This record gives sequence, structure tokens and C-alpha cells, in this order.
Amino acid sequence: MQGQDGFVFHFGGHAPSRTVRSGEVFTVFTEDCFCGKLTDVDGRPREVAPYPKVNPLTGPIAVDGVVAGDILAIRLIALEPARDWGVATISPDFGLLSGTRANPNLQRPQDERVWIWTFDPGRTSLTTPTRSGPPLQVPFRPFHGTLGVAPAHGEVRLGVVPGDFGGNLDIPDLGPGTTLYLRANVDGGQVYIGDGHYAQGDGEISGTAIEGAFNTTLSIDRLAPEEGFDWPRLETASHIGVIGCARPVDDAVRIAASGLVRWVARRTGLDLMDAHQLVSQCCKLRIGNLVNPSFSVLCSIPKRALPA
Amino acid sequence: MQGQDGFVFHFGGHAPSRTVRSGEVFTVFTEDCFCGKLTDVDGRPREVAPYPKVNPLTGPIAVDGVVAGDILAIRLIALEPARDWGVATISPDFGLLSGTRANPNLQRPQDERVWIWTFDPGRTSLTTPTRSGPPLQVPFRPFHGTLGVAPAHGEVRLGVVPGDFGGNLDIPDLGPGTTLYLRANVDGGQVYIGDGHYAQGDGEISGTAIEGAFNTTLSIDRLAPEEGFDWPRLETASHIGVIGCARPVDDAVRIAASGLVRWVARRTGLDLMDAHQLVSQCCKLRIGNLVNPSFSVLCSIPKRALPA
Amino acid sequence: MQGQDGFVFHFGGHAPSRTVRSGEVFTVFTEDCFCGKLTDVDGRPREVAPYPKVNPLTGPIAVDGVVAGDILAIRLIALEPARDWGVATISPDFGLLSGTRANPNLQRPQDERVWIWTFDPGRTSLTTPTRSGPPLQVPFRPFHGTLGVAPAHGEVRLGVVPGDFGGNLDIPDLGPGTTLYLRANVDGGQVYIGDGHYAQGDGEISGTAIEGAFNTTLSIDRLAPEEGFDWPRLETASHIGVIGCARPVDDAVRIAASGLVRWVARRTGLDLMDAHQLVSQCCKLRIGNLVNPSFSVLCSIPKRALPA
Amino acid sequence: MQGQDGFVFHFGGHAPSRTVRSGEVFTVFTEDCFCGKLTDVDGRPREVAPYPKVNPLTGPIAVDGVVAGDILAIRLIALEPARDWGVATISPDFGLLSGTRANPNLQRPQDERVWIWTFDPGRTSLTTPTRSGPPLQVPFRPFHGTLGVAPAHGEVRLGVVPGDFGGNLDIPDLGPGTTLYLRANVDGGQVYIGDGHYAQGDGEISGTAIEGAFNTTLSIDRLAPEEGFDWPRLETASHIGVIGCARPVDDAVRIAASGLVRWVARRTGLDLMDAHQLVSQCCKLRIGNLVNPSFSVLCSIPKRALPA
Repeated sequence: MQGQDGFVFHFGGHAPSRTVRSGEVFTVFTEDCFCGKLTDVDGRPREVAPYPKVNPLTGPIAVDGVVAGDILAIRLIALEPARDWGVATISPDFGLLSGTRANPNLQRPQDERVWIWTFDPGRTSLTTPTRSGPPLQVPFRPFHGTLGVAPAHGEVRLGVVPGDFGGNLDIPDLGPGTTLYLRANVDGGQVYIGDGHYAQGDGEISGTAIEGAFNTTLSIDRLAPEEGFDWPRLETASHIGVIGCARPVDDAVRIAASGLVRWVARRTGLDLMDAHQLVSQCCKLRIGNLVNPSFSVLCSIPKRALPA
Repeated sequence: MQGQDGFVFHFGGHAPSRTVRSGEVFTVFTEDCFCGKLTDVDGRPREVAPYPKVNPLTGPIAVDGVVAGDILAIRLIALEPARDWGVATISPDFGLLSGTRANPNLQRPQDERVWIWTFDPGRTSLTTPTRSGPPLQVPFRPFHGTLGVAPAHGEVRLGVVPGDFGGNLDIPDLGPGTTLYLRANVDGGQVYIGDGHYAQGDGEISGTAIEGAFNTTLSIDRLAPEEGFDWPRLETASHIGVIGCARPVDDAVRIAASGLVRWVARRTGLDLMDAHQLVSQCCKLRIGNLVNPSFSVLCSIPKRALPA
Repeated sequence: MQGQDGFVFHFGGHAPSRTVRSGEVFTVFTEDCFCGKLTDVDGRPREVAPYPKVNPLTGPIAVDGVVAGDILAIRLIALEPARDWGVATISPDFGLLSGTRANPNLQRPQDERVWIWTFDPGRTSLTTPTRSGPPLQVPFRPFHGTLGVAPAHGEVRLGVVPGDFGGNLDIPDLGPGTTLYLRANVDGGQVYIGDGHYAQGDGEISGTAIEGAFNTTLSIDRLAPEEGFDWPRLETASHIGVIGCARPVDDAVRIAASGLVRWVARRTGLDLMDAHQLVSQCCKLRIGNLVNPSFSVLCSIPKRALPA
Repeated sequence: MQGQDGFVFHFGGHAPSRTVRSGEVFTVFTEDCFCGKLTDVDGRPREVAPYPKVNPLTGPIAVDGVVAGDILAIRLIALEPARDWGVATISPDFGLLSGTRANPNLQRPQDERVWIWTFDPGRTSLTTPTRSGPPLQVPFRPFHGTLGVAPAHGEVRLGVVPGDFGGNLDIPDLGPGTTLYLRANVDGGQVYIGDGHYAQGDGEISGTAIEGAFNTTLSIDRLAPEEGFDWPRLETASHIGVIGCARPVDDAVRIAASGLVRWVARRTGLDLMDAHQLVSQCCKLRIGNLVNPSFSVLCSIPKRALPA
């Protein structure tokens, strides 16, 4: 399946790589963030995938009939690992626990290290050897770090950027069974997908997840424009939520939480204060990433908490 | 049981209200953050509990034999609601989604509103009427918003402050079955407890949880000093974690995550980079509060992720 | 002179509006941020210049012979007001002392107001009537809020954005006699200029300066690439400095201050710690804006502080 | 003169070291932040002045007749260096350009270094040798880094803390000729002074100024309570300003700028929007420190900008 769609490194500015019908179920191959070129622990991340040629995106996928202002409901149906291994790194001047270009210091930069994680039998977990001790094992929790549309107002952004257009959100909830709602900023919507993660802790603090290629099955529904729709919305079987992207995290939470309060008010007829009260007593805040150009946070509540 | 311990409004500077033996199981009454005086929706929060006479603390409880530098393991055994209702408010100049004294703006302040939440039959949830629509219902999730010791270096802090001494952390994991580890800064340790919450969403974004009185059963074990122990640690049946307090949230996460990386390295013999990798691929970040003088975050991992 | 160059609303993605020789002195007309359409106190800013059609840029101006990687020395020679009035506004959901889209709250948005400032005789100050009292008067301090080049890596950004490519910096030092150094990211460099300010306090806290059109005389020198050149540098008769752009301000200062320390070390042969010591004892930090998508800070030291 | 007043390491909790009359001119000796014990470049800062025994404060000085709620006008009349040298350091885990306990990372900590600065003939500048090159020279710009009163609400804070009670502000404007206004939180006011700086760049980015002892002449006037007085106010011959303390810097600016807007409105009768407009077009923002438990910012405007 690899090769049907090419890879690009920006959001915006492209002709569609394919066009789908609203609701059509289709499958795409997504490469890992190192373009599949970081294959062993002696590899050099910044040589095999030099910035900004990182985080290759599959797409853009146009949706037939979508016009700017419509809402896209992107349903992630199945994420099938395309390889039996994933890769993770720690690099100088990157990650939450290091100075970075946006947050520099004068200390000596941290060293670089690469881990190759391989699936365990049964594929419910992954294991990696370590240099300093016993191997590590974590559960398989597949999701797409990056899922977005062409940005508003004619901007063109790098594939590592998250924002109101979605993008490099790194929210672990973006796995099988989840729907991400994004507003189309251009006709066709132009959906980009990539940055598969076999597992990731909240915040992606070291700078990468367990990065892996996927064959991903999804559909994109065209929905009518909706007043008050602004930042990305997410829905699972049990929860609804809003995603905010900003620095510092505090502001990302403000975007997500106030967005959810307004959405709940609109859905339920509650006034803002009662909706605020409800969200405040039962919301979950999930920090997606703390390492991208903007940080991302999901604020969600259980659907069953919504008054009938 | 009410009245055995008096209430105080600071951390530090008090003679003990009682002294317990290491490991002794005992029960305390804790008042709600409004001193039990906000009992109906027409009440005025800032008149019945004028700042800084909010967040009354039970204690301090001294632990026999503890000297400064020892570690206290505070085990929360049972939190029994002392009333059949709790109270929540939204107030001017307070909360994440409002300007505050530390983050002011020139907009008109939001209005004040009070909600009385009452237990549903079976006491697994609470319900409140609203002014604008149907009632709200959320699950009962009891915990103590405030649990701390006398601060280091002779400081005396208000009861609303969180920090390395614990305090007003508002981490929802601080419920039955959880152990909070704090370093004693003074002989006896001087443990303060209060701010019972019947339920609270992450971040306590509106400024209060469902505030309620508890009869709480706990024990405090004296443990030996431990090299590298700095910020509060938390343990449940399944997880271990570190709590950081700072503004902005980013820095609270840095404290919690780097603290957990160092703790994992120390426990497992992994070097810092391998420990960093493990935490990064499986940690949970939970934002406790975004409304106190410092914000609080818990970074935790499953115990089963620790290599043997 | 108006009309020789058209106006654009992005950095990047354009053919040059004109090409100049290195060192050539030339004059451009720059429109105010409201496209010259907000001319009286009853005007509606967001109707006359609806987002993102704000902050029109003159250019891009290509420099003959410049290739990507070269350094551009943009010398601001003279800023001649093109009108006898400027305009300033306060708007809902904008400014440091208001919730914004990136920092939202649930309070009622502030009202909108427009001030028309006119030059006093002698043109050393400007005066505006007020609605609530006596008129206001401030000194004339002309500068360009916006001066940048095409961004790196193929990004296209809105004209309101500041960054390592310069852009909407709003640093009041960018007036007559100042040189701004920027690295060319594309051949020709592609310089954009606009957003004339007749006066502005540090931080542009209300969201606008006294916005005015200019006929501006400048030159652009092509300099060789320079190792270690990263963020914009600024030079006046007496000072050198580095500009950082980030949120929160803390990080913008980190970029600017560490950039200046490294630059001083490189120029003087001092090691990083001695250069750090020098900068720390005599630097000035100037906050340009606190209202754009990134905040900007200049860290500068007197040239005479540089050891011979 | 040394020894008339003892030194303390906290704000709050002390009996007065002396009592003065309102308006009385008196002189105090203030020790440097290392208690005068760091006297050469081979000294070990954290051994000679181990935390929290740093930043010794002279005082507290009670003012006769002052009651809680009164305003104190602390006039700095003359700052006479008590020695011919000052000292500055860079230390591990401290400073804006390093990870710190509140902002940790996993990089190797920076090294420690000490500089001894000595007055040049004429005492208008100071010079220090360097390890890596020629000596450094900066102008003599004397001020007190620390000037505060007993905190509100019974808190006791370390001498390194700034806040609404003043404290470790590190605002370079706090030199000869400046008046700092603080609200008395307790009867007598209880003024603490120390942390003399012979020079300091904005932000005190390396973590220390050129630290030096002073014999300082000052007076403290008792003024009536004033509605709307909240954060510290500063007045010089030419400017008035408000100081905010918070993290991140953005919030410190919000406190200072909104405080000044409200003060200007109250003084001039302008409404908030007109006062906001005035401040926005002519304010200066000065960052005092970026290294203390809270960061500090002064927002000031020229007195001549105030409409008559």
C-alpha cells in the first residue's frame, strides 16, 4: 500500500494526493517521523531525517463536496502497525527536560540515544533493550500523533506544528474508535495524517513516542458548518472533548476548557456558569505534547454527564 | 468527632493539636473550605469565609519520634463524608477561566454563583439543581485537596498554598488507598489535612471542587531519610508518581517528570536516559489545580512498568 | 509614492515587488495596520480591516545577489510620517489586559474604542481627545512594528506573526538609525516592511500602537553568512542586541539573552561564563509586544561594555 | 555602623530591630547577599552562605504610629558603598539560563564561578578580571535588591522572595532618589532592607548582581490608607510606576500594567479605557529579576504624561 500517497512536510499549499467521498472507508500508509530511516540504535536521527524533513505526512486527502467552513468528522477505524518495531530517541536541545531552541540555556546539551522497540508476541506490548540495565516494556497504545487540515488564512506550516487546524497534536486518544472534528479552511478540506505512535506517555516528554509506520483505515464525513466551532473536537464512545494548542500549557488548557464549556452550553441549553460548573466537576485534562512549537491539551467529559 | 482538633489557616508555626505513633490508625474530622458556613445557594462565599479564613486545616498532627529529614508515609485509609451535601462556587476574579489577582485583566469580573450538591441514594454520585436547565450529576470521587507538613526553612504559608511541603495540592488521586510521602521539615513532621472534595475535575478550573466535610481515617508511618527525596511522592496499589508545584504548569510538569525519572533511575539502577525513556513512553500527567498560588501536577507510571 | 509597491498580508510565498542593490538607498511607502481605512473614532476596526487583512506589508523587496544563508543588514535611515494623524484602538478579545483567543476567559469581553491621535505643531508629540477627560499627549517616537524576511523551511506566515525571520516584532528601537540583521532564508532575502508606529509603549499592551503610514528611507546590505547567527540582531549607534520571540515572555528573554551571551563570546573571545557575567551586569531587556502570536524581547548591551 | 541592626533571613515574624518616626532620616548598614563571606574568586558561595542563610536583611524597622492598612513611603536618600569591592557568581541550578529547582532539566548542571568586582578610581564604574580574556567594566548603578514589609495574613517568607509586600524585587530603579510605596500589613509596618547591588542588568539573569554592602540613608513616611492600593508603587523625580511579581513574566506585567492603568484612572479621572490607552502608548516595562521565586516587573510612565 506504501507509495499510493506521497509524503509531504507541510500543512497547506498542496494539490490533493487523493480525493475521497464523504463517509468512504479507505486505508493509507503512514511513515514514521524519521521517514523510516532510523532503523538501529547506532543511527543518527538528525542525519537520516534532517530538520525539517521530519514528520512526513500522508496526503493531503480531499473530501468530495467539502467547502471551506464545513466540519470534517475524521473517524479512525483501525491502525495496523506496518512493521514489527518502532523507534524512540533522546536528542540534544529537544524535549521537555532539556533546553530547546525556544527555551535555551547555557548548560552542556544532553547526549543523543536511540531505542528500538519491538512488538512482543501477541502484539499487546513492546520491549526494548537498554544500555544500563534490564529491558523496558510498555503496552501497545496505537494512535496518530499528527492529523490535520490545511491551515486558515493561507498559512503554510511545518508538519511538526499543532494548532486550530489540528496537526501535530500528539494526543494519545487519537486511536482506533476516535473521531476528530476539524473545520475545513479550504475547499476539499485537505486532510494530512502521519506520525504513528505505538505508545506514548502524556506530554511526549523525551521528544518522541515509540514512532512507527501504520496502515490506517479511516473515513471522513462532511458535516454542515456549526456556529461556535473553533478548536478541534474529539469524540470517543464514552467522551467528548476539545483540544487547545498554545504555550504555556496553562493557555492550552484555557482554550480547551473554555471551548468545552461553550460547547456543553450550546448542546444542553445550560447557561455558561452551569456548564462551567459541570465541566469543572468532572473533566479530564490530558496533556498531549510538551515539546512541539505549541503544546496541546484535551479537555473532555463523559457523555453520560451531559444532562438529557 | 468534630472539635477534637481545632482548625488553623496556615502551614507552619503551630504547636501540635495531637501526637500519634508511627503507624497508628486514627480518625480526624475535616471541615470544608468554607468552614461549613456556605450552606445554600443564596449564601455569600466571601462573607461567610472571608479570605484568608478559608480552607481550614485540621492539625497539625505530630508523629512521635519523627525528626526533620525523615520521610512521612501518610496513608489515606477511608474518607467518610460527614454531611449529605457539598458546595461549589464560581466567584469574581477567581478560577482558570477568569482574570485573577495573579493574572488580572480589565474586563468586567464574572458573577458569583453557588451550587449545593447532594448525595444520590447509594451515595455513588451527587446531584445539583441548576438555574438554567436540568440538574447536573457527577460521580462521588472523594479525596483531600489539602495534605501537607510544616514548610522548610521556617516559612509560614497560608492554607491555600501548595508546594514541596504538600499543602493545597488538589490532586484527585489523594483518596482512599493512596499514600502520600512528604519529607518532614521539622521534628514531629506536623501534618495538616483538610479541604475535602466529594468530586473535582482535573484542574479545579472553576476554583472549587464539590467541597465537603469528612471523617477521615489515616495513618502516618515514619520512614528513614532518603537521598534524592525532594518533591511529594504518591503511591497507589498500581502506580507511583511525583508531584510538582509551580507556575506555569509547564514547570510543574518539569518538576514532577524529572523527579520521577530520577526516582525510577534510583530504584531500578537504570541510567537517567533509560529511565527518561521509560517514563516518557508510559507516564500519565494529571493536573491537580490551576487556580492556587502554585499549580500542581502528578506524573505517574504503573508499578508493573518498573523493570524487576 | 504610494502604489509603487503593492501590499501583501503574509511573509513568504511572493515574487518580489522590487529588487534593490546591496547598499542602495531607497524609499517605500508603508500603510498603517488598518490599511488606512480607520479614520475616525466611530470607525469599526474589524469591519474596515477584517482579519486577516490587517497589517499590510510593503514588499517583498529582493536584494540583488543575496543567496539563502547570507545576512541582511537592514538600515532604517528616515521614517517620514505620511499623514498628520495616527490611530489606536482597544478591541474585545485582544491585548495583554484582556482574554484573547490564545488566552480565553469566560468574562464579558471589553468594549471597543478608537482614538485618533494628531501631530502637535513641530511634530515632536501627538495628542488625542478622550471621552472621559482631558486630552492625552505622548512624544513622537517613530518605528516600524514589522520588518522581516521570508521564513525558513517554506513556511508562509501571516503579517501579524513575529519570529526568527523578524516580522511583527513591535520593538520600539526599530526606528531611524537602527540596523536590523536578519538571515536570508531564500535567495534574494525578500524583505517585508510595514506597521508604522508614531509611538508605542513597551509591550503594546492595549493591542495597538499609534498606527501611522510612513515614507521610509532604508538600505539593505548583503553580508556574508556568519556562524552562530540565529535570531534577529539589532544595532544602534550605542548598543547591540538580540531579539527573541516566544511565549511566555520568559522564553523570549531566554532566547535573546543566551543569543547575546553567545554573540558577545564570539566577538570578544571571552568564554561563555565571562560573557554571561558581562551581559548579566549591564543588559537592558525591552519587551516589544505582549499581544502577537509570539511575544518579543530585545536584550542589548552598550557597545562600550565590550572589552577591546 | 555595622551591628546596630542585626540580620534576619525572613520577612515577618520578628520584633522590630529599631523604631523610627515618620519622616525621620536615618542610616542603616546592609550586608551583601553572601553575608560578606564571599571575598575571593576561590570562595564557595554555597558553603560560605548556605541556603537559606542568604540575603540577610537589616531590620525590621518599625515606624511609629503606623497601623495595618497605612501606606509607607520609603524614600531612598543615599546609598554609600561600605566596601571597595562587590561580588558576583554563576552557580549550578540557578539563573535564567540554567535549569533550576523550579524549572529543572536533565542536562549536566553548569559550573560555578565567582567574580570580584572592584571600584575604579572616581567610583563611577567597577572592573573585574576574567579567566578567559580582558577585564570587564560596567557603570556603578547602586540600588537595593530587597526592600519590603512584613507580609499579609501572617505569612512568613524567606528573604529571597518578592511579592505584594515588596521583598526581593531586584528592580534597578530602587536607588537614590526613589520612593517605594508599600502597604503596611501589620502595625509598625516592619520594614526590611538589604541585598545591595553596585550594578545589575535587567533580569539579574545570571542569578546575582554585583553584590555589595551599603550604608544607606532613608526615611519612611506614614501615609493614610488609599483605596485601590494593592501592589508596590514606585516614584522617581520623573516617573511613577507599579511593580508586579508573578511567574511567568507575562503575569507580572499584567499585574503591573493593570495596576498602573487603575492608578492613573483614579488620579486623573480618566475612565479605564482612556487610562489604558495612555499607559499603552508611553509606558516602560522593566524586568527586575527572572531568577527569584517570583519574577518582578515595573510598569512606569512619565509624570508629565499625566493630564493636568
